[in-house]
Amino acid sequence: MSEMHALVRRLYPLCRSITGSGLRRTLEIIGESIPLEISEVPTGTQVLDWTIPKEWNIRDAYIKDSSGTRIVDFAASNLHVVGYSVPVSATMTLEELRPHLHTLPGQPGLVPYRTSYYAETWGFCLSENTLAGMGPGPYEVRIDSTLADGHLTYGEHVIPGRSAEEVLISCHVCHPSLANDNLAGVAVATRLARLLAQEERRYTYRFLFAPGTVGSIAWLARNRDRAGRIRHGIVLACAGDRGPITYKRSRRGEAEIDRVFAHVLRDRPHTLVDFSPYGYDERQYCSPGFDLPVGCLTRTPYAGYPEYHTSADDPDFVTEEAMRDTLDACVRAFGMLERNRAYVNLSPYGEPQLGRRGLYESLGGRSDTKQAQMAMLWVLNQSDGAHSLLDISERSGLPFDVVADAAQALLVAGLVKE
Amino acid sequence: MSEMHALVRRLYPLCRSITGSGLRRTLEIIGESIPLEISEVPTGTQVLDWTIPKEWNIRDAYIKDSSGTRIVDFAASNLHVVGYSVPVSATMTLEELRPHLHTLPGQPGLVPYRTSYYAETWGFCLSENTLAGMGPGPYEVRIDSTLADGHLTYGEHVIPGRSAEEVLISCHVCHPSLANDNLAGVAVATRLARLLAQEERRYTYRFLFAPGTVGSIAWLARNRDRAGRIRHGIVLACAGDRGPITYKRSRRGEAEIDRVFAHVLRDRPHTLVDFSPYGYDERQYCSPGFDLPVGCLTRTPYAGYPEYHTSADDPDFVTEEAMRDTLDACVRAFGMLERNRAYVNLSPYGEPQLGRRGLYESLGGRSDTKQAQMAMLWVLNQSDGAHSLLDISERSGLPFDVVADAAQALLVAGLVKE
Amino acid sequence: MSEMHALVRRLYPLCRSITGSGLRRTLEIIGESIPLEISEVPTGTQVLDWTIPKEWNIRDAYIKDSSGTRIVDFAASNLHVVGYSVPVSATMTLEELRPHLHTLPGQPGLVPYRTSYYAETWGFCLSENTLAGMGPGPYEVRIDSTLADGHLTYGEHVIPGRSAEEVLISCHVCHPSLANDNLAGVAVATRLARLLAQEERRYTYRFLFAPGTVGSIAWLARNRDRAGRIRHGIVLACAGDRGPITYKRSRRGEAEIDRVFAHVLRDRPHTLVDFSPYGYDERQYCSPGFDLPVGCLTRTPYAGYPEYHTSADDPDFVTEEAMRDTLDACVRAFGMLERNRAYVNLSPYGEPQLGRRGLYESLGGRSDTKQAQMAMLWVLNQSDGAHSLLDISERSGLPFDVVADAAQALLVAGLVKE
Repeated sequence: MSEMHALVRRLYPLCRSITGSGLRRTLEIIGESIPLEISEVPTGTQVLDWTIPKEWNIRDAYIKDSSGTRIVDFAASNLHVVGYSVPVSATMTLEELRPHLHTLPGQPGLVPYRTSYYAETWGFCLSENTLAGMGPGPYEVRIDSTLADGHLTYGEHVIPGRSAEEVLISCHVCHPSLANDNLAGVAVATRLARLLAQEERRYTYRFLFAPGTVGSIAWLARNRDRAGRIRHGIVLACAGDRGPITYKRSRRGEAEIDRVFAHVLRDRPHTLVDFSPYGYDERQYCSPGFDLPVGCLTRTPYAGYPEYHTSADDPDFVTEEAMRDTLDACVRAFGMLERNRAYVNLSPYGEPQLGRRGLYESLGGRSDTKQAQMAMLWVLNQSDGAHSLLDISERSGLPFDVVADAAQALLVAGLVKE
Repeated sequence: MSEMHALVRRLYPLCRSITGSGLRRTLEIIGESIPLEISEVPTGTQVLDWTIPKEWNIRDAYIKDSSGTRIVDFAASNLHVVGYSVPVSATMTLEELRPHLHTLPGQPGLVPYRTSYYAETWGFCLSENTLAGMGPGPYEVRIDSTLADGHLTYGEHVIPGRSAEEVLISCHVCHPSLANDNLAGVAVATRLARLLAQEERRYTYRFLFAPGTVGSIAWLARNRDRAGRIRHGIVLACAGDRGPITYKRSRRGEAEIDRVFAHVLRDRPHTLVDFSPYGYDERQYCSPGFDLPVGCLTRTPYAGYPEYHTSADDPDFVTEEAMRDTLDACVRAFGMLERNRAYVNLSPYGEPQLGRRGLYESLGGRSDTKQAQMAMLWVLNQSDGAHSLLDISERSGLPFDVVADAAQALLVAGLVKE
Repeated sequence: MSEMHALVRRLYPLCRSITGSGLRRTLEIIGESIPLEISEVPTGTQVLDWTIPKEWNIRDAYIKDSSGTRIVDFAASNLHVVGYSVPVSATMTLEELRPHLHTLPGQPGLVPYRTSYYAETWGFCLSENTLAGMGPGPYEVRIDSTLADGHLTYGEHVIPGRSAEEVLISCHVCHPSLANDNLAGVAVATRLARLLAQEERRYTYRFLFAPGTVGSIAWLARNRDRAGRIRHGIVLACAGDRGPITYKRSRRGEAEIDRVFAHVLRDRPHTLVDFSPYGYDERQYCSPGFDLPVGCLTRTPYAGYPEYHTSADDPDFVTEEAMRDTLDACVRAFGMLERNRAYVNLSPYGEPQLGRRGLYESLGGRSDTKQAQMAMLWVLNQSDGAHSLLDISERSGLPFDVVADAAQALLVAGLVKE
């Protein structure tokens, strides 16, 4: 089964941007797996310090040589057009055209990914090799795009839990044909939502699929009150390359989500990095006014692999196995969040007599003590309301699940309360 | 002189348990050296979450083969009977008897120590070698014990100090013929009490000799108010083997007693371990409701030596030299506690002129400065009421006694106050 | 140019002490470069716990042998007389004279530096070699000094800033012919004052040239209220030897001045040492009643070089290059203090849109991000009023000046406030 990879491949050809029909179509396809509530924010709307830009749509674009051959063709790859390019229809020499051409001289076979959301201009991206083969022209240059009042679109999927406290999983959906960045994140999030729905949940889980930066800013602007309900969160991106997982801590640095991922990742190759205010939408969630406990989970982080923001970030660059590993880390981390809490020992003066409650081996004098019994003693000893099960697991060195099982046994026995 | 070892040897043959005449006789013998106030807590008394069990006494027990030979004989070693065994008088085949026999297959020459305080059963402990030599039987099996309403007994010795604040030294006295665990602790505590009585004391010292777990729980239940007076404490156990000292920190981890023992032990081989809720009666003192600053001082800790809880933990296993080393560490640590306090510099603006008070060398310009003068400068500089002499010793790197002597000189000179 | 070394050479021959005409003449010469406000504190004045001593002046002193030759001659070096020696005029045998002679047996060619401010006595310092050549005598011994009511003198140079908050630079000026200790400190401070005067300043800078201990105590006694205005400070001493810089932290240990010097010194060989209450006048500034954030900047610290407090600490022992390095560290540290502050992000919800303010590159999708842009993001993210630019520099790993420039750009753009 390669359900996640199939979704990556299906979404790959669409020309996404921070607005427009490619973005809408992407949300529709995600919505086939998990129902999305779609929001449309009109052009010109003030969102925090930003303004929703005009909506951009594109139908075709090319550079034709004098023989009528499309040297550069949007139909072959939507990366060929600089995102948010204004319409152009002109005949130009190479010299005139050159300032509008973007290549990667160091990676001559690859097409770069470029955008210009907030400065009205236009351009083409092509390989250095293609550029090298271009004569002086003239060329027929055409971009059949529209930049007009419209909407910015984002989608949300909410899985209610016992509590109104929320866990946020946020994915940017504004990149065109780039697989790892961020169709892999979208695919993992979609699968994760389906898995979480199968379990009884304490937290409410909110999945947000929005264009980067202005999309999360729009969501925050329209959900300022709701933001306070977010107890934990991650930005999920670059989730499918073959590198090990990287977890970037929230601005707080020692938030529960940060500690949980550090704990979960101990068992596999991984990297932990401190917060910095550059990267994905954690920049917005961790701005000082919100300061939400939201980290960022990737495999190789942004700009950390040569394929980053180039035509080489295609569906072959990501693997089902890597996405499954990312998914597994999320499942374990959210499972730990679900179970993690601080208990209060109801019998805090001395140890309660576990033996008469069937919780302790009756034959004394033996020098071996089972992990489960140690975990019960640790939970009782530390449960003064200030130490969470994760604290206890870390202090005792016992596995989190053993500690959580012990707490559950003590809860059933009436020895601790939540 | 081998006073402590003599006490170990004298107490060794008694059949102690968490109740009973062997326990009472042990307290009587300790009381010959230091007067004990004896408490008797009736069977059935509720103590915290526990109930005082029936009192157990035993006169004889054996397994006789068909020739009338005692294969296993309580008279030879009280370890042969599982503690709290109910009375038995039967003839049984080996097959019937086998579930009641406990051996140590990995240490075939040794007899294990086993108890069953809270599940009414019976059993014998014997060496694997003895078991191997036993034929199919039948055997005459007899345990002449009584399990009946009675009392749990503990003893206290209090040495009053200028202050009602207490230092607790707690020893478990419930183990039968095991020398290191805990007759060595009893012997060191008894000697320590006599030494402390010879000095002027700031603190009141309370020595508690009680059966493990239920004994300390009984004391805590009957002294809930007094527990609040305990400023420092140790559980003293396994005090006589040849290994280096281990100090286990209190639950608080950075209590003054923890820092004092860490400081004192720096000068000799030792191990410091963090608190865990398994071990001796520190489990009770450090339960979250009490959370007393009580650490645990041992040499090799429980279950850390092959002789632990076996017949090999006999008087030859412990040495006078090791007990003296344990005693010396206690004497130094309590001496430091006695002297450690925070002073207040009465002349805190600039340095007071030490020279005119005869506290400072008069000939300036020399580059060597005596440790005692440095200590005075440190005490003056740090004595804002928030830094103890131990803090100052640790920050300055100067020996504690030099710092304490400097503080005393400054106190006499009227430059600091307590 | 060797302006600082020239000042060292000019001041070197003067016979300074904690009072007297050599001290006054020293302040006059410093005053030629930077105007000084001179304070004269009368003998007998109570200053904190101290009393201003009598004023000491000396015109001549010698030990003459029977041939009339001056074996030891104050005119050759003022180190030859123990500071504060009372007048003497006598004929003495070597045996009688010997208790008044001070040598350095381990450094037989050098003359030691000795004083006896607070015990009325007299003495000569000479080399061990000279002593070895002295016959039984008799000798004509003469010290033409006066010890009489007078004054203690100190001088201050204040460079006003926008704020009344002060930075203190304190130099002891009580040592006679010793170049590194502390004419080099005086020379660096004098040059530093002239450099600081050329810049717009936030802080008011106070340079204090005072005799050690009793001089700084006198200043503190007469400026108790002003002491509260001191936000940062250093004691500057031993500023010219060839060793690397040593910065000794203030009593607080993590004061801004401590962090600033640690930051500045990272780029050159240096040593950081923790506070101790021995050394120079930081002893007084860091006494617990004042507890001022005043560190001590030296090159090789006191008593750390063999020439310390001997005739070998002469002008050849210090170099212009070393003094320039000390000066440069001060200039950088005070420059950082001037710029360091905490800002408040006025647009703390999400990132403000830097692009439309011309603060951000418009072409998105590129993987390289300039340091300046990162610095702006960091300043915005951390500027919640609790994090200084130094905090931000340390957390981000970005150079302090880049961070401060970013903050300035954001201030101009109205995105942050002070």
